[in-house]
Amino acid sequence: MSMLGWTTYATIYAIFQRYGSEAKHMSTFSQSLHRYFEAHEDEHLKELIEFLRIPSISTLEEHHKDINAACSWLINKLTIAGLENVQAIETDGYPFVYADWLHAPGKPTVLIYGHYDVQPVDPIELWESPPFSPVVQDDKIYARGATDDKGQVFLHIKAIEALLALTGELPINIKCCIEGEEEVGSFGLTKWLENNQELLAADFIVISDTPLMQQGIPAICYAVRGLCALQIDVQGPQMDLHSGGYGGAVSNPIHALAKIIQSFHDESGKIAIDGFYDDVLHIDVEERNQFSTVAPPDEYLMNQLGVPHLYGEPGYTAIERTWIRPAIDTNGIYGGFSGEGTKTIIPSSAHAKVSIRLVPDQKPKQVFEQLEAHIQLHAMPGVIVTTTRVDEGLPYVASLDHVAVQAAHYAYQEAYQVEPVYIRMGGSIPIVSTFSEQLNAPIILMGFGLPDEQAHAPNEHFHLDNFRKGLLTLALFFTQLAQ
Amino acid sequence: MSMLGWTTYATIYAIFQRYGSEAKHMSTFSQSLHRYFEAHEDEHLKELIEFLRIPSISTLEEHHKDINAACSWLINKLTIAGLENVQAIETDGYPFVYADWLHAPGKPTVLIYGHYDVQPVDPIELWESPPFSPVVQDDKIYARGATDDKGQVFLHIKAIEALLALTGELPINIKCCIEGEEEVGSFGLTKWLENNQELLAADFIVISDTPLMQQGIPAICYAVRGLCALQIDVQGPQMDLHSGGYGGAVSNPIHALAKIIQSFHDESGKIAIDGFYDDVLHIDVEERNQFSTVAPPDEYLMNQLGVPHLYGEPGYTAIERTWIRPAIDTNGIYGGFSGEGTKTIIPSSAHAKVSIRLVPDQKPKQVFEQLEAHIQLHAMPGVIVTTTRVDEGLPYVASLDHVAVQAAHYAYQEAYQVEPVYIRMGGSIPIVSTFSEQLNAPIILMGFGLPDEQAHAPNEHFHLDNFRKGLLTLALFFTQLAQ
Repeated sequence: MSMLGWTTYATIYAIFQRYGSEAKHMSTFSQSLHRYFEAHEDEHLKELIEFLRIPSISTLEEHHKDINAACSWLINKLTIAGLENVQAIETDGYPFVYADWLHAPGKPTVLIYGHYDVQPVDPIELWESPPFSPVVQDDKIYARGATDDKGQVFLHIKAIEALLALTGELPINIKCCIEGEEEVGSFGLTKWLENNQELLAADFIVISDTPLMQQGIPAICYAVRGLCALQIDVQGPQMDLHSGGYGGAVSNPIHALAKIIQSFHDESGKIAIDGFYDDVLHIDVEERNQFSTVAPPDEYLMNQLGVPHLYGEPGYTAIERTWIRPAIDTNGIYGGFSGEGTKTIIPSSAHAKVSIRLVPDQKPKQVFEQLEAHIQLHAMPGVIVTTTRVDEGLPYVASLDHVAVQAAHYAYQEAYQVEPVYIRMGGSIPIVSTFSEQLNAPIILMGFGLPDEQAHAPNEHFHLDNFRKGLLTLALFFTQLAQ
Repeated sequence: MSMLGWTTYATIYAIFQRYGSEAKHMSTFSQSLHRYFEAHEDEHLKELIEFLRIPSISTLEEHHKDINAACSWLINKLTIAGLENVQAIETDGYPFVYADWLHAPGKPTVLIYGHYDVQPVDPIELWESPPFSPVVQDDKIYARGATDDKGQVFLHIKAIEALLALTGELPINIKCCIEGEEEVGSFGLTKWLENNQELLAADFIVISDTPLMQQGIPAICYAVRGLCALQIDVQGPQMDLHSGGYGGAVSNPIHALAKIIQSFHDESGKIAIDGFYDDVLHIDVEERNQFSTVAPPDEYLMNQLGVPHLYGEPGYTAIERTWIRPAIDTNGIYGGFSGEGTKTIIPSSAHAKVSIRLVPDQKPKQVFEQLEAHIQLHAMPGVIVTTTRVDEGLPYVASLDHVAVQAAHYAYQEAYQVEPVYIRMGGSIPIVSTFSEQLNAPIILMGFGLPDEQAHAPNEHFHLDNFRKGLLTLALFFTQLAQ
């Protein structure tokens, strides 16, 4: 999942003023769905807690068995829900879980995509309750994966189950693809798709892995940034050296790494990699002006994040810098002594994890080449610098001119009693561009998380108000698609 | 301990050619000492292994009880050796162990200083045998503390024990001060000394915590560099942020830290901190020319360290850069995700451990102020940078015009059958300048380690040839001092 990163109380009032008076009362069908979900809430929460207890961290090899446990759990629940052909499908990486219900001839087919893998939990010491012992508190459920993405995958399963329970059938044809490698780049599924488009073929694809604009304001996301991620390894002396004995005589790998990282930006905050901005698409002023209607004021963001200033590429607002401009970040750095106290060494090596967010029309392959050349250009004498590509994904922009977008708009409005907003997203869902290319179907990004639900961070949680409204939204969305 | 960091096969041949023909045969007294140590070697090694089994890591609070165990072990062994007034003396930090033998009226009093604390063991995975399970192999003993400094402290205890066993008395008066905080800056002993000079008062001080020039070539060290060590903490957003959602909008603490570290040096490799070189003493060309007689060729060093180039301040040879020029090194860096795979975050904070080696007449207090100002000057907008001083020590240069130097010269020559060389040292022994100021006595640095014995690194070891020759050298040194 990739968070929007933007919430604002200012916006919520503005939008309520605009749409609050137009809020319709719920339809009879909505009300019967609502009653069904209310009656089953305790049971649903118990099941979600089971799912969240499984530490299915895809980036850590030691959790392989938990990946399998999450697959088995899903197979069981999808079968109970009433779906058919439920199975784990092997890929070169971790398997994805497939299920379908294809008994609505003449109606559209929707592919539901989600992921059962989760992010690592470190820094573990900052969690207020253990990440895999879910806790419900203040109408929120706390656990790794609560909002990203197990909680949202769960909504789809239970919305389908509800429709089948209440009506004995589904209004449309449904396929599910719940994968186990989203947090590490979806490599297995991506490769599998190259030769297997037919099984997942659909009229459109729905993904619930994005957040609402903010509590109470649903959002339909029409663009995501792409990704290039790599590891930098700087090798200096073949062993750690005493910094007294050798300090001054040899290159320090940490200094060499700092020089590389520092060279990513120029003094103004612009990315200083040669040719980097060449393919960045110009966004017209009309669209940029739209952003300001949903963007929070800087003061709000600074306060939310606890930073003394925002900072980035000049000439763009903070929301523009995350929505329509590329960015480079170092996600982690390590080398030498990091324990308590001091250890006066020149470390043998130093390492960093770097990722770039791409915007249309940047291509991962080309940006990788630019970045790798830049890194070697800034390597100090006396060290050997190597880079390893670890993840990539194309940026994606959707057309808003589609019946599925209208159905999503209707469903959100009915469930939340307020019109959804249309937004871009700073994050990346690598599978989005893969689906777009391989399945040639429009993608609807309609999520139920909140931007401050700590996806990828300690104390991840999912608001139960959106759990309830999400179930209703999805059941209404599937129903509306049949109209 | 601080290593020299220089060995060369070229030098050994040159020096053997110069002095080999002058080598005297051992005196009768030397031979009887030699026989005594030979007869007791197995027993001595067993005792040293006991000492090395104690994981007395001073920088890690969890090893407090091991510090106490090392104290108790020393008290027992010093008492058995025949020393008197043996006791642990409390300081504001860890205690030091005191012992004396003061029954040689009219003879000089020597203070033996050493330390029973050791460095941390990480990276633990690079040790070929566990650091606190000593192993004897290829005539070397492998364990953390083997060469730095437990092995060398042990030599003093057994040299004293031998003299008392063979002659019933010591030729001079001896005091011992074995402390437990050398690896973290000797703060407790330093503070204690401010009000307690009398107990440790001596005519001169001997420290065995420096290495030989190389195997077979003893060295008398006449200068050490000083030290300023601090921790840099860069605080960004109050929680880890998703790098998709926020990448481009806020300062990344790792980037801010890289900018600071990169700013320490200019493009040429010179330190770029304002005023940094103002107090650096000019060393005359005559002394600099002497260095070249003991310095290894660059190719040898590059091969030894496994680096493609040496690198540092222009205008100085590699040995000059470590002996007579100051240096700044980052000893460790950490922040964000360092696990396997990827985690696309902007970390909340990033941290580095930095140390500067000082040369005469730089003062730690002033250099700290320059460094701290420099760091704040290079802090990016959007983060808060704090620094914490963790260690300091003045540089020291000794006079070579002293009877104790002559005694050390004689003892080395008799034990090693080759004349010792006179060297400076790149490392720091913070207590050296403290002793010089508080006790106003000359300090003789005569050690028995080797530069490649991995002090502060995995697979630390101590060559048993120097264990044997060290025992003999010290017994002869104490005897010669009475002449």
